[in-house]
Order: sequence, then structure tokens, then C-alpha cells
Amino acid sequence: MSESKKISVCFTADQFDKYADGKSTVVVVDLLRATSVISTAFTAGVKAIIPVQTLEEALSYKGKEGYIVAAERNAKPIEGFDYGNSPFHYINADVKGKTLVLTTTNGTKAIHNARGHKVITASYINIEAVANHLIEKHNDVIILCSGWKGVFNLEDPIFAGSLADLLMDSDKYESSCDSLFASIQLLKNSNGDLFNYLRDSSHRKRLKSLNMEDDTHFCLSPPIKSDIIPILKGDKLVIL
Amino acid sequence: MSESKKISVCFTADQFDKYADGKSTVVVVDLLRATSVISTAFTAGVKAIIPVQTLEEALSYKGKEGYIVAAERNAKPIEGFDYGNSPFHYINADVKGKTLVLTTTNGTKAIHNARGHKVITASYINIEAVANHLIEKHNDVIILCSGWKGVFNLEDPIFAGSLADLLMDSDKYESSCDSLFASIQLLKNSNGDLFNYLRDSSHRKRLKSLNMEDDTHFCLSPPIKSDIIPILKGDKLVIL
Repeated sequence: MSESKKISVCFTADQFDKYADGKSTVVVVDLLRATSVISTAFTAGVKAIIPVQTLEEALSYKGKEGYIVAAERNAKPIEGFDYGNSPFHYINADVKGKTLVLTTTNGTKAIHNARGHKVITASYINIEAVANHLIEKHNDVIILCSGWKGVFNLEDPIFAGSLADLLMDSDKYESSCDSLFASIQLLKNSNGDLFNYLRDSSHRKRLKSLNMEDDTHFCLSPPIKSDIIPILKGDKLVIL
Repeated sequence: MSESKKISVCFTADQFDKYADGKSTVVVVDLLRATSVISTAFTAGVKAIIPVQTLEEALSYKGKEGYIVAAERNAKPIEGFDYGNSPFHYINADVKGKTLVLTTTNGTKAIHNARGHKVITASYINIEAVANHLIEKHNDVIILCSGWKGVFNLEDPIFAGSLADLLMDSDKYESSCDSLFASIQLLKNSNGDLFNYLRDSSHRKRLKSLNMEDDTHFCLSPPIKSDIIPILKGDKLVIL
């Protein structure tokens, strides 16, 4: 059998430079909600997604033929944008063939920080497809949790645990860090009921106070599945 | 009853700026081994500890009357220094009344980063004294885990969970962040057997490979207890 590859988990976008090695595949996760929205938007037919860091940059695409713009700050949609950061905005919406320009609080920052690596995005919508791709390519993996404004959140590491479990089940991957051990422990403690386990988490409270419980349900236990793996090419996420 | 105060947990020294508020009490922990060594050295009679960041700075104190110098890098002691980062170096040693100049990989960095706040250090040796002091003072608390070279380690958050449990048992404190929730979950999963729970942790492996298992036992389940609370005054840790 060939040598096991390593999986590391980075808990926040800001810490990525401590993990960057220029050769690992980076899997960005911002479960609530950016990378779940990205999966959903591709599934709904968008052809590309441009993650941008500022509202100004996103607005510069507004009204351009073939582009739609979406933004979120502090979990809230922003006036003047076509779409927000809810996956429901993209289901049955007229987005086929469009390019989505997206800026969110944490997820787009994580994607930017990981540039220079092979970057793909993951959510529970495409987790199996992502795991199968990683197992096939058999490269070291860094799971980059977006976190919340530079601090640890609970939902992204739990997703990291789910993805790492699939990879390690293949016997082609092994854990290489304490943060992955912790992620798997947290996943295990959730006993398969993420919605209740995350009841007291900071971001679920944030979304709850904004009446976004449906979004949380959608992202934690999505009613759709997708084989689409978004990959960063230049400044765009496209379908692998 | 008065309002509950907040406890946050910062997982690495480098991330402290995300948590700094200028008014919380900061409890620095580098369980394996800096803050355990600090507790032990004070218990053995040192009167002050100067945490310095560089080997050069530490060496500048060498041979000065009343000073002893100690250093560690990558878990190993350094040639030319009187002491290393093992608590056993300080038990029954001739250190009474001396000032210890200490530089370690992560712990001294955490102490430096927290300057500007009230900074105390904690380990399982003085955990009860630290908890009682915090409960009495009833101020917001940031538990600053030193981590390992900017990345998450397992042992410091577990200690953070132990300390937070004591604080929350008083009903005067409440959790304010996902990192504390995770810390408490990890502590719970250890089932009271930290030594085995940390079997696969990166730093225990590091110490094991250096034949420092005795140090690990000492720090996780110390044979001594102390009421001494080291507090940073200017550039020195002194006894509160």
C-alpha cells in the first residue's frame, strides 16, 4: 500500500499561513453558510463564482450582463445586492449560466488566503464527491475552516471531522494534528444530531436571532446532494 | 445575584489580538511545560521569573548575581543554560530567593502578547488557587492557550476546560465562545485520564520521543499543589 497522506485542520482563515506549504490541496469550509451557498448555487446552474473580499468590488459587477452579485456581512444580507448568503435564494432562481460574485464575512477571506494552493470548497451538499476526489488524487489535505472573524467556530471543525472520517476510512489518509483530533471528538459528541449539538454555538445563535433557522437546517442536513466540486481557477470558482 | 462574567478561550498565543479587550484578566497556560515549570519554580522558592523571548536576552543575565537562566526550544534544553523546561530541574534545587530568567517556545510568547492586561499563569499545580482568585475578583477572563508555534494543541484547551468548569461551578461565570465549549467537550471526553487521552497528541509524542514522559505525568497530574499565583508586574512574574 502506498504511504498515507496527511490531513491537517486549520481552525480560522487568519491562521492559514501557519499551515500553508504550497503543495497540499486546501478544502475551504464555511458551513454556515458560504460554502453551502456555493454548492447550492452551482447545483442551481451558475457557471462560475467570483469570491471577492469587499462590498465595493462586488458592487462593481452589478448590472453587468451575465453577472449577479451577492453579499453578506455579520450574517445579514446587504441592501443593493441581488442575493444574500442564504442557500434558499438560489433554489429555483434564475441563475442558470450566470456568474455569481459573492462576498461574505469569513468564507471569501478563507478562499483568498489559500490562493497559491489547489483550492476546492466543501459542504454537506458535496461532501461525498469531495472525499472521493481527494481519495483518488491522494495528496496531503488542509481543511481550512473559515471561523468567525478570526476566531474558532464550532460548525466548521465538525464538518472537518466528517470529511476527515471519510478520508481516513479509505486507509489512505492519517491525522497529523491535534486540531483534527479535536474536530473528530466534537463530531463524535454530536451523536449525529448537529442541529441540537450546535444549539449553543455562537453562529447558530446569531442566525437564530435573525430568523435563519431554516438556513441552518439546510446547511447541516441538506435536502440536496451534489457531485459538483467547486475549484478555484485564477479568481473564479468553477466546476472541476 | 450579580451579572455573570464571561470566559473566553484563545487557542494560540498568536491569536490573542482577536480576544484582547484591555480589561479582561488573562490566564496564560502552557501546560507542557512552561506554566507548570513556573508554578514549580515559585513553589521551590524563586522570588521572580522574567519571561524573555530570545535566547540572547536570556543569556545576557547569565552569571549575574541572583539570577539563574533557563531555556527550551522545540522541547529540548539548550546548551549554556543553567536550567531547562522540566519541572524536575527546580525541585530540591538551590533556587531560593533567585530570579529565574526563562525562555520557552510558546509560553513566554503568550505572556508577552498578553501584556497590557492583568496576566496570571496557571497549571494543574495552582488551578484551585487561580480559580478562587478569579471567582473572588469576578472579572471577565480570557484563558490564553499558548499552543505550539501558532497552531492548536490539545493539552492547553483541556486545561482551559478544567479551569472554566471550576469558574462556572461558582455560577459567577458563563461561557462566551465556541472555543470554550470545545475545550469542555475535550476535557469531558478524556474521562479523567489525561495521560492516555493525550497519548496521540502532538506534544506528548514530542516529549515521549525525548524521554520526557515523567515531565508529562508531572504536569498532567502534579504531585505538588501550590497556592501561589504568578502575576506579571512590568517584565517580571512575581507572587500575587
